[in-house]
Amino acid sequence: MECDRRATFVHGVYDAARNVNTELANVADWLPLTVILNGERFSMNRGTIEGYCRTLNMRNGLLTRTVHWRSPSGERATLIFERFASLAQPHLLCLRCRVCPEFEGTIEFRTGIEGHTDNLGVTHFNWVDQGVRDSTAFLRTRTRQSNIEIAYALQALLTSGKETERAYWDAECTPWIVVKAYAKPHEEIILDKRVTLYTSREVPADKVVLIAVDSLHTAPEWDAALEENEKAWNHDWERTDVLIEGDNDAQRALRFNIFELLIAAPRHDARVSIGAKTLSGFGYRGHVFWDTEIFMLPPFTLTYPDIARNLLEYRYGTLEGARQKARSNGFEGAQFAWESADTGEEVTPTWIPDTHDRVKLVRIWTGEIEIHISADIAYAVHQYWLATGDDKWMIEKGAELILDTAKFWGSRAEYNAKADRYEYNNVIGPDEYHDHVNNNAYTNEMARWNLRTAFEVLDWLRKVAPGQADSLISKLDLTPTRLAHWADVIEKMYVPMLESGLIEQFDGYFALKDVDLKSLDPRVHSAQHILGIDGVNKTQIIKQPDVLMLLFLLRNQYSDEIIRINYDYYTPRTDHAHGSSLGPAIQSIMACEVGEPVQAYTEFWRAARADLYDVRGNAGDGIHGASAGGVWQSVILGFAGLHISNEGWTMNSRLPHDWRRLAFKFFYHNSQVSVDLPLASAPSAVEPELATEGDRV
Amino acid sequence: MECDRRATFVHGVYDAARNVNTELANVADWLPLTVILNGERFSMNRGTIEGYCRTLNMRNGLLTRTVHWRSPSGERATLIFERFASLAQPHLLCLRCRVCPEFEGTIEFRTGIEGHTDNLGVTHFNWVDQGVRDSTAFLRTRTRQSNIEIAYALQALLTSGKETERAYWDAECTPWIVVKAYAKPHEEIILDKRVTLYTSREVPADKVVLIAVDSLHTAPEWDAALEENEKAWNHDWERTDVLIEGDNDAQRALRFNIFELLIAAPRHDARVSIGAKTLSGFGYRGHVFWDTEIFMLPPFTLTYPDIARNLLEYRYGTLEGARQKARSNGFEGAQFAWESADTGEEVTPTWIPDTHDRVKLVRIWTGEIEIHISADIAYAVHQYWLATGDDKWMIEKGAELILDTAKFWGSRAEYNAKADRYEYNNVIGPDEYHDHVNNNAYTNEMARWNLRTAFEVLDWLRKVAPGQADSLISKLDLTPTRLAHWADVIEKMYVPMLESGLIEQFDGYFALKDVDLKSLDPRVHSAQHILGIDGVNKTQIIKQPDVLMLLFLLRNQYSDEIIRINYDYYTPRTDHAHGSSLGPAIQSIMACEVGEPVQAYTEFWRAARADLYDVRGNAGDGIHGASAGGVWQSVILGFAGLHISNEGWTMNSRLPHDWRRLAFKFFYHNSQVSVDLPLASAPSAVEPELATEGDRV
Repeated sequence: MECDRRATFVHGVYDAARNVNTELANVADWLPLTVILNGERFSMNRGTIEGYCRTLNMRNGLLTRTVHWRSPSGERATLIFERFASLAQPHLLCLRCRVCPEFEGTIEFRTGIEGHTDNLGVTHFNWVDQGVRDSTAFLRTRTRQSNIEIAYALQALLTSGKETERAYWDAECTPWIVVKAYAKPHEEIILDKRVTLYTSREVPADKVVLIAVDSLHTAPEWDAALEENEKAWNHDWERTDVLIEGDNDAQRALRFNIFELLIAAPRHDARVSIGAKTLSGFGYRGHVFWDTEIFMLPPFTLTYPDIARNLLEYRYGTLEGARQKARSNGFEGAQFAWESADTGEEVTPTWIPDTHDRVKLVRIWTGEIEIHISADIAYAVHQYWLATGDDKWMIEKGAELILDTAKFWGSRAEYNAKADRYEYNNVIGPDEYHDHVNNNAYTNEMARWNLRTAFEVLDWLRKVAPGQADSLISKLDLTPTRLAHWADVIEKMYVPMLESGLIEQFDGYFALKDVDLKSLDPRVHSAQHILGIDGVNKTQIIKQPDVLMLLFLLRNQYSDEIIRINYDYYTPRTDHAHGSSLGPAIQSIMACEVGEPVQAYTEFWRAARADLYDVRGNAGDGIHGASAGGVWQSVILGFAGLHISNEGWTMNSRLPHDWRRLAFKFFYHNSQVSVDLPLASAPSAVEPELATEGDRV
Repeated sequence: MECDRRATFVHGVYDAARNVNTELANVADWLPLTVILNGERFSMNRGTIEGYCRTLNMRNGLLTRTVHWRSPSGERATLIFERFASLAQPHLLCLRCRVCPEFEGTIEFRTGIEGHTDNLGVTHFNWVDQGVRDSTAFLRTRTRQSNIEIAYALQALLTSGKETERAYWDAECTPWIVVKAYAKPHEEIILDKRVTLYTSREVPADKVVLIAVDSLHTAPEWDAALEENEKAWNHDWERTDVLIEGDNDAQRALRFNIFELLIAAPRHDARVSIGAKTLSGFGYRGHVFWDTEIFMLPPFTLTYPDIARNLLEYRYGTLEGARQKARSNGFEGAQFAWESADTGEEVTPTWIPDTHDRVKLVRIWTGEIEIHISADIAYAVHQYWLATGDDKWMIEKGAELILDTAKFWGSRAEYNAKADRYEYNNVIGPDEYHDHVNNNAYTNEMARWNLRTAFEVLDWLRKVAPGQADSLISKLDLTPTRLAHWADVIEKMYVPMLESGLIEQFDGYFALKDVDLKSLDPRVHSAQHILGIDGVNKTQIIKQPDVLMLLFLLRNQYSDEIIRINYDYYTPRTDHAHGSSLGPAIQSIMACEVGEPVQAYTEFWRAARADLYDVRGNAGDGIHGASAGGVWQSVILGFAGLHISNEGWTMNSRLPHDWRRLAFKFFYHNSQVSVDLPLASAPSAVEPELATEGDRV
């Protein structure tokens, strides 16, 4: 049987290993705690569980487990475990264990830091040092390849009950503290474990231990720590919460998705981003995809612009990696990695083993030809700028991102002399069921948008910051010849579209076999799984919106008629249920656009419950971060109909039938806008519970 | 800086993992020992090392390290660490630490079993259980994929000095025992650590802990354990030692190679073999190659037939894997894996990453087309039978190995109608500088030998064990048609040879570029490294004897003239110094055959010092087991000229110039033969020291 896969990830702590591309390393486990009641070791697998409850409080990130246990020898006790990673002090981790025995006897707590962790069997750390200072145990480890040092400091104290004995187990790489007490019946004994964690990414390597130990000495005790953590959470929920009345399930699921985004967001570090699986699992190895900019970023841009800026700054910081990638492919400018880790180098695996055939390998092409991500990043930069009016950042960093990606698109464009047009051939669009395609509409149009926007930004820059404009023109070598070439590409970029306004996803798509997806029902697998990689490639079945994704991002460029005709064509050909988890939220928004509320709600709900109900069966690999961001977008940009453009913001709400109220706040140019969309028949608001189940901290 | 790579391997404990083929798993580390003198932790990296000596006693496998240490605060002590893995009780591991302080104060020993080990970053174990029973700590772990359970029991006792305090650290997966004493100046304190290790391969999984703990309780103390270990070693050296007088360096190196073979040999388990790197390193992942049968087996066959039989029985036990491999390739019979682990399935990697290019992969073809191993195994079976006269085993198991490999060769032979001959095309011979070759002389001739021998064995079987003959004929489907086909293949097998008797290594070899190896001098890399894989493929440079290897194995089939002409042709074209480590010993034997004593000694010495002097710079990956076996062969089959054939044994010695005496024993048909080859001028024998340096237990 598969064991649980407890893991602790820290933003930016990447490491490579034998046969494994760079991945987010599973750092030491700070949770180990053994409780021994009158000599009997408590375990969920021993004695009798007479009651059990696990609660995640989404208001403050507190996870509580309550167990009523009868030991093998018949002694009863209630054990309550609570823990949280402080939002107020990001280096502080707190765990409390409350034991209330019905007997008289010893209560022994053994608690440690387990430095021997691995990523699904791959180890990333070497032991460096450990010891005890002023009743604080510490451990220092180092990643094997990237040489990041991490120090952990640990204290364990009884805050109710009297300590009768204490020991330190100095076992290598796994220091433990043992605390014993003697309890009378119904006397609650409380052990508070606090851990601090520092890495050489934020403090000097030779001071990690000192700083971890010192910061633990000055850190607040449990009650105060929990209080300041709650304050920090109140601050975050105040700006990010979305209230739904009339649909408690949707309310809970939406908050769960926002919660997952909030706990993964880097608030204090502009050198990291959020991986496709956030910080919650081993899936995709902590790598960063377009998922961040196109799906997760909008909620931050509109409710928490400081975080959005951090995320975009990660791309600015990895520009060198993107330039290196462009160069090594014979192009200019910045070609961002499809999968990005610490340096911005491409870390997409190139080959993965075929599980059925030891000689065969499956070639993963996304790292080489799913090139649209460079435009996606430029788009996100532009959206951030539109929404925040953060001209300072745009001048200092954003403009360079937009210009250097444009430079890539200019160099990557292929001139078709016969048709006197520019093309992008041999690519993968958002729909990954089809690879090595030519003239993917999404890619071509987003590239053109990127080039066009580069001109606008450059014009603007020349006006507001001519020095920076000159500097960038010189640094990026934006000669008149190059700019003239960009203009030519913009003018002659080819995007396949029928006279009716129906856009062809890529050259030859309409000639593919038009399989009715319903003919595969009933099914529990994706169309690709059923038909095979090559099989589905020959059909019009798509993994997720591709043309519709384009219409969603560049909504203003298209008439309602074009939206409608493309919606009608592509919707039945999309593998909503078993294709990409990125699809449903966008499909929901486009359904709102064409006035299909039932389809909109269906797809919203498909996205909203993805992880909370584990409907795709792979939540164990980690949260679907893009889906979480998409859920927020489907509510705010879809149902509420918020739209940000050069002209400002507009709203055009179309709420699901049962929703009686939708209320939220967003920031536009530094001002917070409160939106409350009550329907006439709405009863008085009763705020639904935030608490739900699930073991994610 | 690369740390040391301490590892403990147990025969048969294989496991697979993420992105890694099945490999010998590095089990728990039984060595951890920390000594704290008056509160100061002893470390080679702290204080002052005033004297240091490390000795491996090859007579009894005892490794001793002596350290004279001055602590940072100026206290002096002598620490002596001794350890051995008992040859008498293979589940028992013993470590003694003697501390003689020059001060008065506390001596603290902390010693544990570290269950968190990995194979170069890949973990193979999950924790199962641990605890303390009657002052014995135990740990139970399980391999992650192959579900092998291992239990370790640990005791630590003072056998000189008085214990003042004792503690058990029950840290998860790394149980420790702490023992403290108080010492007066020059009073020796001795800690004896004993560990037992059992796996579910030899005892029931649910009893591993019980048996490990119980066996530790009844195991002898240090002195008695060391004594019975020495007895066992005396027994082994008595039959395996080879005495050389007049060349102390050669004597020591030869014994070192024999020692390495002896410590890797499975004495109690016929389901395992010896990997290419014995049990001494991570290289080749504990996989078994032809190295075992052709290089390591002969010393066992002739001095320790029980071990040889165990090794061959491993192949018998993996026949199903070999049959599966043949079937999946469209052939019949038994096609043995080029790299074999627990089941006999092919475990050669198919692709390995190119370290210079993340998209490129290097295809490893040996698993598919280096097919000669099936004949090599049959050859070893036959040699064992010739030398031991073990008819019983031949009837029960050996015959089936020879017949079923013959069946493979019959089905694999390709009929060339135009030339009316049989061929084996698209293969790799022993010389791996050339792959995808046709009609490799070694492969074709060894296949023919295998088929021919199958007839002989079948005839013999029909006479001595007709029931078994019938049973095998039926089981292996040896129809008259099939046997007639074998006869046809034998008759018409093509082996490229010039009229002069010069054998062409494979079709077209003589047409390859004839590069003078001297033109690459001076060099420190292989010809393949210098010229590239494709480059060397186009030359006549070979990695190791290939035609000469054939002449060595089937010596009786060839005249002295043919040996000479081929020796003269291939010797200068062989990359002796930087090619395969399998080559020099065989080259040495063939030099003896043609009466070239200087070349014979040069190549013998190249092989003999490979690991002891780490001349290839990769002894850290593990001992070159084939070379070790080859060294023995070069002395016994080369210099002493022992030859075993159907007719019995012969000897034709041609000792190196300085050697004044060569003495050894071997078994022939259950009788031990003592050989003593003194030269007239030999002085009285002074037995050289067995002790040498090196940290290998």
